[in-house]
Amino acid sequence: MLKLVILGTGNLSKHLGRAFTRAQGVELVQWVGRNALELEKAAGSIPHTTDFGSIAQGDIYLIAVGDDAIGEVSIPLADRKGLVVHTSGTVPLEALRGKDRGVFYPLQSFSAQREVDFGEIPICIEAERPASLERLRALAGTLSKEVHEMGSHQRKILHLAAVFVNNFTNALYGLGQEICQGEGLDFELLKPLILETAQKVQTLPPQEAQTGPARRGDLRTMQSHLELLKKKKHRELYILLSEMIRENRPLGPGDPTASPWTDQQ
Amino acid sequence: MLKLVILGTGNLSKHLGRAFTRAQGVELVQWVGRNALELEKAAGSIPHTTDFGSIAQGDIYLIAVGDDAIGEVSIPLADRKGLVVHTSGTVPLEALRGKDRGVFYPLQSFSAQREVDFGEIPICIEAERPASLERLRALAGTLSKEVHEMGSHQRKILHLAAVFVNNFTNALYGLGQEICQGEGLDFELLKPLILETAQKVQTLPPQEAQTGPARRGDLRTMQSHLELLKKKKHRELYILLSEMIRENRPLGPGDPTASPWTDQQ
Repeated sequence: MLKLVILGTGNLSKHLGRAFTRAQGVELVQWVGRNALELEKAAGSIPHTTDFGSIAQGDIYLIAVGDDAIGEVSIPLADRKGLVVHTSGTVPLEALRGKDRGVFYPLQSFSAQREVDFGEIPICIEAERPASLERLRALAGTLSKEVHEMGSHQRKILHLAAVFVNNFTNALYGLGQEICQGEGLDFELLKPLILETAQKVQTLPPQEAQTGPARRGDLRTMQSHLELLKKKKHRELYILLSEMIRENRPLGPGDPTASPWTDQQ
Repeated sequence: MLKLVILGTGNLSKHLGRAFTRAQGVELVQWVGRNALELEKAAGSIPHTTDFGSIAQGDIYLIAVGDDAIGEVSIPLADRKGLVVHTSGTVPLEALRGKDRGVFYPLQSFSAQREVDFGEIPICIEAERPASLERLRALAGTLSKEVHEMGSHQRKILHLAAVFVNNFTNALYGLGQEICQGEGLDFELLKPLILETAQKVQTLPPQEAQTGPARRGDLRTMQSHLELLKKKKHRELYILLSEMIRENRPLGPGDPTASPWTDQQ
């Protein structure tokens, strides 16, 4: 039985805490956090403390706090025997104090409002010692069947890719909503399309799934779209993404040019 | 029983044809197309012809061809009694020849490789005559419970919004894949995140679902991301989308600035 201590009371720590409470082979021995109210809500009947001087003995200390706080939160654990890990996509392992350090990064977007099934979520692990890596693999394996070992640089790159497919994609959803609202159209209309777009690339590579005026080189439609966009940034974004789509299309014979805006006969 | 003639042998016409074959209250009386091979594949046992001079009599003629061909394909139908409709998001109703004209635009992304369930897909309809609008409503109602009447301008705006949430979102998926591949990371890792991002906005407004460094104003992470991006266009895109996210966040007190790049203390 792995004895686990969780530090932090944010979204991710709450999702992880709930998941570990239900997992086999893990005992959540203590929850530690500064915010007494949030800690109470998160920990419930699990032993908990706001005193970072009273951290219980654990096999693994899971630090799930904001990137900037990771180093500081790890200081009281610097001399512990257990494995000290953080959960960030961008922070290097070296930011941690501790004799035995690691990373446990679940690649998913966590919201307070939505329950998450960890079973399919990739968990990226890293550790300095082989035995610690195996221990992290065991811990991650209690939640997910997708456990991947990678270094801090690869994890950072993966986080960057995640910003594009998650944060920036969501921004495009917001822009779609804004465009609709301007004409009294309901965002509901776009929801099946949003879902199908995401489902399609589960089985089809994005390049093959690509459709639309930019992919076809349909300049007339693209021009009329630019005339409909009222904000300069939205037009810049339209042009930039259209050019990227055009550059990434599979080239046929006699179809050598890159920019849709210089493609015209 | 509505007598339907389909014109065209592209993706959309095939999806519609298959769906109407199974629908109650519609009889697909003929399939018309230039491409004999594709027509044979699409129509199967349904009467079909490549001769645009031999179009059967129908209540509704559904023209599902490329935007540029719509006007031309409608010419042989100019004097028919039936309702002549196209299926485009961007082409105005007036592009059609015919005494009785309309539009039947299903808002979804159709691929040859993927079966589509029309039941939840918004179908946008438009017609010049009230009786024709009712007829289109009946036709659309055999496939979907989401039938919406709108004019050509609104449809065009909706199509523009769809380009952002579908074509451009897919381009971001492609960029995520490119970033991963550059470091030997499998695109598979991003798939659960892509799906969750789309599922989240089914119940949560995009502005509330927004997370990430730009939303938090985490300049250090954003700066390190820009340093990791090798292509100028990718950096431009990162900055543009981050600025949009920052501008669209709900403003708190003492948090008046818009650009994340000028936000630093």
